[in-house]
Amino acid sequence: MLSKMRLGSYSHNLRKILPGIESCGPKGSRYQSAMAAAAAVKEPEGPQMVTEVPGPRSKQLMSELDEMQSMKTIQFFVDYEKSQGNYIVDVDGNKMLDVFTQISSVPLGYNHPALLEAVKGSAMATSLVNRPALGVFPGANWNNSLRDVLMSVAPPGLNNIITMMCGTCSNENAMKLMFMKYAEHLRGGKEFSQADLDSAMQGQMPGIPKMSILSFHGSFHGRSIGCLSVTHSKAIHLVDIPNMGWPVSDFPRYKYPLDQFVRENAVEDSRCLAMVQDKIHQQLKDGCPIAGIIVEPVQAEGGDHHGSAAWFMGLQAICKKHNIRLLIDEVQTGGGATGKMWMHEHFNLPEAPDLVTFSKKMLSGGIYHKEDLRPQHGARIFNTWVGEPSKLIILDAVIKTIKRDNLLAQVTRVGASMTKGMNELQAKYPNIFANFRSLGTFGAFDCSTPEIRDKLTGGMRKEGVHLGVCGETTVRFRPSLTFDEKHLEILMGKLQTVGGKIDS
Amino acid sequence: MLSKMRLGSYSHNLRKILPGIESCGPKGSRYQSAMAAAAAVKEPEGPQMVTEVPGPRSKQLMSELDEMQSMKTIQFFVDYEKSQGNYIVDVDGNKMLDVFTQISSVPLGYNHPALLEAVKGSAMATSLVNRPALGVFPGANWNNSLRDVLMSVAPPGLNNIITMMCGTCSNENAMKLMFMKYAEHLRGGKEFSQADLDSAMQGQMPGIPKMSILSFHGSFHGRSIGCLSVTHSKAIHLVDIPNMGWPVSDFPRYKYPLDQFVRENAVEDSRCLAMVQDKIHQQLKDGCPIAGIIVEPVQAEGGDHHGSAAWFMGLQAICKKHNIRLLIDEVQTGGGATGKMWMHEHFNLPEAPDLVTFSKKMLSGGIYHKEDLRPQHGARIFNTWVGEPSKLIILDAVIKTIKRDNLLAQVTRVGASMTKGMNELQAKYPNIFANFRSLGTFGAFDCSTPEIRDKLTGGMRKEGVHLGVCGETTVRFRPSLTFDEKHLEILMGKLQTVGGKIDS
Repeated sequence: MLSKMRLGSYSHNLRKILPGIESCGPKGSRYQSAMAAAAAVKEPEGPQMVTEVPGPRSKQLMSELDEMQSMKTIQFFVDYEKSQGNYIVDVDGNKMLDVFTQISSVPLGYNHPALLEAVKGSAMATSLVNRPALGVFPGANWNNSLRDVLMSVAPPGLNNIITMMCGTCSNENAMKLMFMKYAEHLRGGKEFSQADLDSAMQGQMPGIPKMSILSFHGSFHGRSIGCLSVTHSKAIHLVDIPNMGWPVSDFPRYKYPLDQFVRENAVEDSRCLAMVQDKIHQQLKDGCPIAGIIVEPVQAEGGDHHGSAAWFMGLQAICKKHNIRLLIDEVQTGGGATGKMWMHEHFNLPEAPDLVTFSKKMLSGGIYHKEDLRPQHGARIFNTWVGEPSKLIILDAVIKTIKRDNLLAQVTRVGASMTKGMNELQAKYPNIFANFRSLGTFGAFDCSTPEIRDKLTGGMRKEGVHLGVCGETTVRFRPSLTFDEKHLEILMGKLQTVGGKIDS
Repeated sequence: MLSKMRLGSYSHNLRKILPGIESCGPKGSRYQSAMAAAAAVKEPEGPQMVTEVPGPRSKQLMSELDEMQSMKTIQFFVDYEKSQGNYIVDVDGNKMLDVFTQISSVPLGYNHPALLEAVKGSAMATSLVNRPALGVFPGANWNNSLRDVLMSVAPPGLNNIITMMCGTCSNENAMKLMFMKYAEHLRGGKEFSQADLDSAMQGQMPGIPKMSILSFHGSFHGRSIGCLSVTHSKAIHLVDIPNMGWPVSDFPRYKYPLDQFVRENAVEDSRCLAMVQDKIHQQLKDGCPIAGIIVEPVQAEGGDHHGSAAWFMGLQAICKKHNIRLLIDEVQTGGGATGKMWMHEHFNLPEAPDLVTFSKKMLSGGIYHKEDLRPQHGARIFNTWVGEPSKLIILDAVIKTIKRDNLLAQVTRVGASMTKGMNELQAKYPNIFANFRSLGTFGAFDCSTPEIRDKLTGGMRKEGVHLGVCGETTVRFRPSLTFDEKHLEILMGKLQTVGGKIDS
């Protein structure tokens, strides 16, 4: 009740003050168009459940699909025409508040009018039916797309962009850039020799070097063989698949609430940084030096483990000292849900990380990187398509909407209310809700056991709130950027109801 | 002149007989709609060159792009709105006959009316703005899309499908399926144990096994670390990047013309098959057994090296004998250019290969596979998007057009004329044109030196014919499926002109 009332009055106040804002000056007109856009999304008033989930129609479709494909992870089938805004509607007619958004990949909710408008034009049709091999024959407008869309939200300090199609390919190629740079360093800045090229074709050193990428226990970077070599979140992803056997170090595990464990958490940061140093020395000694470090701002799939600004600053300092590269994987954290376009912007690093990979809310993948990582030869970072221009047409509308509707500020504001609400829930039901951590609306909490976690998410599903999980006991919030106070009020209210029932 | 005249009369005859066909019965109406579609593509009469390529506008755009991205492989910038059918139009207004088609990835040419029609509807808009995480929340129509589109052209004997977004991810995941199956075999069909899972998280055996994939010298399967481990076509792709160090064997190298070297080429097949057997035994002895073989029907990037039906039959027999899997990578060969949807269909294998990967002309990636390779657990073959439904809307139109316009028959017919024409050129200019090999219009020839090859393709470019190369001395033909006699006539005529000049 507590949180519901407080949030209720918050959104009530918001509604009260908005009419006044609407009628005044440029700020007012921005709000007006935002309101107009919001009005055009015909969201349900709240969740409406008519069957279990998966319902009979979903189950039938699952069994049909199973004749062609084994996909045991399917939760339900969706009616995407009927899904609206923050509500996902399944094929059985259940309308659920979506706080998972296709594994955190839907930026503005379903059927957003700005996106529907963006895909209408002839530019989209031309783009879809004439897909270019961008590394050889880009279209006349490609430079403008890169500049006006992707570079307009580039992380500060990173002025180079490589497009890809998914997070996996982005990380694979970003790791290659780090290897290429480290190899150049080992050769004293010189280009590879004919002997390097010849031995590469034979699969031998020195052309195929012994080098490694350092990653962290609990990390997730993708499921190709290179990405699995830096992924350590769940055994089921790894078992039976050979990988590169690269070194792994500890990512900090903090005690919450942070303000009560400042000293302990600082010690944890130091311990983990010292281990990274040790790994770097050990790998050098073993003749398989570390060319770069790959790290998530939050270890999301692994259980939403946050790292402090001090931890990331320390990592960057170590990288600079050893002339190795720092790759920040923002596939899940990038795109605005933390209140900034890139989560690492919250860390106030002395300089930009060397590389930042993205995908998901950015609608297709890619790598932002520093100038000095540019490949010096063609065809080293390359494939048939190297990205897809049609995705940038939609992303353009996403970014314009984020700016027009001031969505990063909204995310920050709603995130603050979320923290308040979760603190109250944690105080009331400490077995159900613990260790809440968040930036913007990118939040998570732990249940005391996996069983309680599953009871909670199952109960929430019945109440019409669709949540995601990660790690063993963690529930993660991954709403769209248009998730506002009225959605948060429903989320918090239902968590209280369902959590209270489990606790009693 | 010779070839030009002969081809000219061929297409003249075609035009003569078509009016009669148009007016009779169901076959006639199919031709009528085909003619209507063909008429709607406003192709230029022939190539029209106004500047060098790259021209001044392309060069300016290259230099602009270079501020954001190092992409040294770009040949020219394209006006995709003006490109039509088999003609690519660059930003300087040059109209070139496109015999490379975006590295073999454009199925029907530019701005095909059937595709422009297909992307118009609300289904496409819904699909584009509500992209699902297909492994968890597929749309209501997903099963129908898979069944009616991808499964409608599945290789005979393969009844399972996994969608992906590119050839690289398709090959990565297909290799994982082979590892998973071989690991199951080593465990005697049992599921992995807790010890397997625990050791996998530690990056140790037995959870992370010592196993390998066999690939071939000259192969190309992609540029991620797993795919680079089975790629051996060019040193520049490999140098500086660590890989898995898996075994490599010889792919046959034939003497041409095939009918004059039957005995020698059979010996070559036997030699290469024996080497595969040796590699399998050696890897078993070394404790890093081969779980599967990955092979292209034609080693395309590596220089368009063909393998005989006997070679592929032999490979399949060896795989069956050793309980390992055969993955045929049809990323470049699939989609119709050989006159069949899948090139391996030409080999008349006793049974289907275990897995077939695709991308390019299929517009997005995927894996067809046998029933017994289905993953027994969720989340092992998985990623955020696992493919993209909007691509199947376009592919549906591609496949319907292939059927409606009888394009596989056209490819076979045009391919036969291409062989005739190339045989004539080879007889006349043996230093310029040698070793022509093809299936359908998927053809290639070798020049006697890299210099002659570059002179030839440069000369052809000036004449308005846009060609691709591969290997060191090879020119490859990769026209769209709508490439017909009138286009072939231009291609052969210009080859004769330019080749003749170089020869003199």
